[in-house]
Amino acid sequence: MAVAVINYDRCMGRWEPNARGRLERAALELYVERGFEQTTVAEIASRAGLTERTFFRHFADKREVLFGGAGALQELVVRNVAGAPESAAPIDAVAAALDAAGAVLQERGDFAQQRQTVIAANPELQERELIKLASLASAMADALRQRGVREPAASLAAEAGIAAFRISFEAWIKAHSQRDLPKLIRESLDQLKAVTAGSAA
Amino acid sequence: MAVAVINYDRCMGRWEPNARGRLERAALELYVERGFEQTTVAEIASRAGLTERTFFRHFADKREVLFGGAGALQELVVRNVAGAPESAAPIDAVAAALDAAGAVLQERGDFAQQRQTVIAANPELQERELIKLASLASAMADALRQRGVREPAASLAAEAGIAAFRISFEAWIKAHSQRDLPKLIRESLDQLKAVTAGSAA
Repeated sequence: MAVAVINYDRCMGRWEPNARGRLERAALELYVERGFEQTTVAEIASRAGLTERTFFRHFADKREVLFGGAGALQELVVRNVAGAPESAAPIDAVAAALDAAGAVLQERGDFAQQRQTVIAANPELQERELIKLASLASAMADALRQRGVREPAASLAAEAGIAAFRISFEAWIKAHSQRDLPKLIRESLDQLKAVTAGSAA
Repeated sequence: MAVAVINYDRCMGRWEPNARGRLERAALELYVERGFEQTTVAEIASRAGLTERTFFRHFADKREVLFGGAGALQELVVRNVAGAPESAAPIDAVAAALDAAGAVLQERGDFAQQRQTVIAANPELQERELIKLASLASAMADALRQRGVREPAASLAAEAGIAAFRISFEAWIKAHSQRDLPKLIRESLDQLKAVTAGSAA
């Protein structure tokens, strides 16, 4: 049965150059123009010049256009925590991982900008974003423990790192993604060090 | 019309000694025994020996039994950030506020313990808890800005403080609320300082 389904899918599915990217762009445009709630999958597909069937081949639902990248970002972060030099302090492993995440986000500045506009307008999406960030912090703490970092140092380094990441990400969005995100993240981690030491006002 | 409603309420409402406390205890017991989803307001009222009407005089719904205290906790935290000595560094104002919050939570160790068991078993309640903590961090950052603390120091101090608070709260719950919560919070803030300085492994 599985084979039959796959064959059917292959026969019916036309090859569409960069369908995923086109759907993403169309979706984000519509979410910004009309609001997330008011946009239908049919409208997204139509604006992208594709079918609803193609949309659902790439995304489970409307929301996944916004959050589908979270898994890949988390993997990237975990891989970079694990791959930091053995001698690196926990906060340095975190910094290396967030640097890599920042570089990836920066490559997609326009998408990030539109995405943030959509999320800021919808409390439910804001909650989803909070949950994704909490999950990212938790995965990072786990990766630190795998390096032999004890608790509470692992959780503190991960949570503090995510706080610095979020705050620099917001500053980057405010600057219309015209500033260097990895640099902002590094500065934010330095400021965090000063703040927790009690030497910033 | 408003007067009529108030009078009606006064006539019908019997005075019930500590109705709110009895409803809270009954609700938490049932949430732990049967699960949050499976418990009805009728069952809570019945176990407390009160009416549903009395329940709804104290709580908007089942969930408010768990989250009704968040507003008061936030006010306490904001008041303590505002009231810290003028010379206090941002992180010290945060520490003073979290110390006060820890002392209040500690007074209700059994409630906190049961509440955590219920929340840990329900993803939707976990999301609600995340949102309440994010709102607490944001209110604390706001109180710091009112003291003249600039961004990103205000947000970093607040977010890092909440991370330390959450981690020490979890350790306290794990220790069956037998350890001193304000002391755990102070230790956690010290560890955070060591971690962000890169001197903890």
